[in-house]
Order: sequence, then C-alpha cells, then structure tokens
Amino acid sequence: MARRIRITVSYDGTDFHGWQIQPGLSTIQGTLEAIIGDMEGKPVHVAGSGRTDAGVHARAQVAAFTIENPIPPPNLQKALNRLLPPTIRVIDVVETHPHFHPRFDAVSKIYRYRMFRGVMCSPFDWRYVYHHPYPLDEAAMAVAARHFEGEHDFTAYAAADSRNGVGKSKVRTIFHSRLERCGDCLEYTVRGSGFLKHMVRNIVGTLIEVGRGNLEGANAMPDRSGPTAPAKGLTLIEVQYPDFEV
Amino acid sequence: MARRIRITVSYDGTDFHGWQIQPGLSTIQGTLEAIIGDMEGKPVHVAGSGRTDAGVHARAQVAAFTIENPIPPPNLQKALNRLLPPTIRVIDVVETHPHFHPRFDAVSKIYRYRMFRGVMCSPFDWRYVYHHPYPLDEAAMAVAARHFEGEHDFTAYAAADSRNGVGKSKVRTIFHSRLERCGDCLEYTVRGSGFLKHMVRNIVGTLIEVGRGNLEGANAMPDRSGPTAPAKGLTLIEVQYPDFEV
Repeated sequence: MARRIRITVSYDGTDFHGWQIQPGLSTIQGTLEAIIGDMEGKPVHVAGSGRTDAGVHARAQVAAFTIENPIPPPNLQKALNRLLPPTIRVIDVVETHPHFHPRFDAVSKIYRYRMFRGVMCSPFDWRYVYHHPYPLDEAAMAVAARHFEGEHDFTAYAAADSRNGVGKSKVRTIFHSRLERCGDCLEYTVRGSGFLKHMVRNIVGTLIEVGRGNLEGANAMPDRSGPTAPAKGLTLIEVQYPDFEV
Repeated sequence: MARRIRITVSYDGTDFHGWQIQPGLSTIQGTLEAIIGDMEGKPVHVAGSGRTDAGVHARAQVAAFTIENPIPPPNLQKALNRLLPPTIRVIDVVETHPHFHPRFDAVSKIYRYRMFRGVMCSPFDWRYVYHHPYPLDEAAMAVAARHFEGEHDFTAYAAADSRNGVGKSKVRTIFHSRLERCGDCLEYTVRGSGFLKHMVRNIVGTLIEVGRGNLEGANAMPDRSGPTAPAKGLTLIEVQYPDFEV
C-alpha cells in the first residue's frame, strides 16, 4: 500500500549544487532520490518545500515522497542516515496523509543569514557565514530591515532570470524581518509566506548597500535591490505548516 | 637582517594529511612553507610545536620561521591569511628572539578530544567529533581518566611504529587528564609536558574500552592501550611556553 512519508532534513550545502536534482551534479534532492529509489526498487520523486541555491544550508528543510515499502519511520530514518553522506542528516521521519505536499501546504518559512564582522573568520565557521569585515552602518541596516515586513511586490528582489514570469505573482508577505548583532556576527532573520528565487540574498545585499550608505532604507523598503549576497551565509531554519498538518 | 617570526595557527584538519610536509600531499606545514617561501623568494623552514596527525584539528598550533623580509607582523598576518585557504588561519604573529623554537621551548600542550554521544550527528559538527552513540560507562571512564595524571612511561600508548626508538625516553608527565559531559558530547581534556605519536588518541581508545567494560581503569592507568581513536575528534587547543617567552 502506498505510504506518504514526510522527512525533515538538515544539510551543509557547501559541497552541493543546491537542492534541485541536476544531471551529473551532486544535489540534495538527487542524493535523496537515489537512495530512496534504491530502497524502493524503482524511481521515487522527493518533493521539497522549495529549492535552496548551491551553497545554501538547511537546519530543517521539509520533503515528502510516496513508497510501498512497509519499513517503520524510525527504521527508515536510521537506514537513510546510514546511506547518506555526513553532510546530510534526516532529523525526523513521519508517515503523513496521502496528499501532503511540502511546498503547497507550507504556510511560512524562516531563513537566517549570517555575516561575520570580525577581522578573521575561524576555520571552523567559514562555511556558514559571509565574511564582511568592512565598515557598515549596522543601525541603519536594522531600521531598513524592518521595512521589508508586510505585503510587497518583490519583483525587484527576484533573480533576474525569474523576474518576468508572465502571470506569476511576485507579491509575498513578510511576517518578520530583523537584523541583530550576535557577538561577531550580524544576523538577519526573515519569516515569510514564501520567497522568490534569490530573494533573501537580495534583501541582504540591499541591507549591505544601506549599511554602506549607497541606498536609502530609513523610511521604506528600497525599490531596487543591491547585489545578491553570497550563498554560504544563508540557512533555511524552518518550514512551518498549519497545526493540523503537524 | 634575519628576523625570527612566531605564528599561532588555527586549522580544520579534515582536508589535510596532517601537519608535517610530505611530497605530493596537502599538509599544514607544506602549505605554510610554500606561501612563506614565495614571499621570501627562497625556501623557508617552518618549525611547528609538534606534528598533528592527518585529520586532527588545531585551535592554536604554534610555529616559527626566519625571514629577511621587513614586513611588520600585522601586515604579515593579513598577507598570510589572504593567501592561505579558509581552513587555515593565522590568528597571531609576533617577532621573537632568534633562538625561539616552538617545540623545544614548549613546556606543555593541551589537547581536547570530543565524542558525540547523541543518536544523530549534525551536518555542521561531524568533522570535529567522533560519533560514538553506543553504551558506555561514562562514570568509570571519568575515574580512569584521572589515573593518567602524573609521570608515567607511555610506551604502551605510543604508535606501534614509534615504540622501539632506542634510547628515546617514553616517560611523559600529564598535569591534567579529565573526562566531562558537555551536552551531547563527552569531552576529554589533557595537558601534558609532551605527547608521543598517537598518545592522546590511544588514551581515548583506552577510556572507551574502560567504558565498554573491557579494561579495568578503576585503580590505575591500564598497562595496555585500547585501539587508537579516530583523528577527527582531536583538537590541539594550546601550546604553552614559559612566561618569558610570551
């Protein structure tokens, strides 16, 4: 009997070409599909809550797939972690209802972007932060960050190659958008209904331009974006679902 | 004029074949010598406080070399960090007296070994811990750890290929040897006058055998060693010198 399985996945994106399967390249989705397909004895599609770019990390990405294999969830989790590389860990496995879809059912996502502001970045941290030791007006950036909250058309913040999709709304709602100092790091945390391609990295690039005095962010969200911030500083922290899905 | 330079180096040993230079292999010493030799325009020998094995990390290894280049220490530090891979950072540079030797002048070293005891090791930590989720009598291990303190002949704890060096004393003094729980990790910290090849990893392997009930460590340091624990859990924390050297 077909079973719908929902997994929560943590990964270090450094050595992967992003979430989405691509021929000949190492990706998170491709790695999961190969292992689960081998267990099932036929191809299995693993749907994710959304793509993460090459180099982006995840604390808790959510994915789902359908299998016939009757293996209990705890055993499935152990089997997957035995077969996966140590840079990908399945941190939760549950059986869910047949129609669960990690992307369409998600109500919000939380991302965090970390900029390391110290002179020298530790060899144990460099994979997970963007090292930016140059002067920035962090107070101005924190003010600007708040202006992303609310419902906005984020066309200017989408990747160039996805800006002109006809009929696709670029309106998204941001529930929380804050920049804070945590020790030597400047941490940007954003929770929203959904995100366009490169949107979080473009918001961070914009905040950096505000911090450098090149963009005005004191009164409203700037209507043009700064350059896309490097992928390595970004981590998908959590994907949120309605209570009845949990 | 010849200047003696002392540097403190932090590294993630995962991708290196240890400290010591080896033809055709990526090592910490080899990487430093190549960069410093290029800056100096001729070969430069970089002496370390001791070798670290392949896969072993360092928070603060100490090394020294002699150059003619008049570059001030802060600029030298910046130049080295610009040229080194992000997995090696020079965290301090000072000019010292012409006879300073990082190995012969050291009075003690501190190592830490971390065992991750949880079911699943995070993709952000796996490089720096030995994942050992199996049952262990941690209290018995903590008692046994204390018996390594004092002056002992550590012949049984040296790597097999270095046990029979004629006339080389295998007596070492351990000032501090403790095992503690820190969250999901079991941390072994040892400070000693010096360490034989594989000695810390063999002590840890011995403590694990005590924890499994295969070796008796309640009353004295076992006179035979357990298997060598994996390199990835070990970090050289600090090399200590007499006050007048600092």
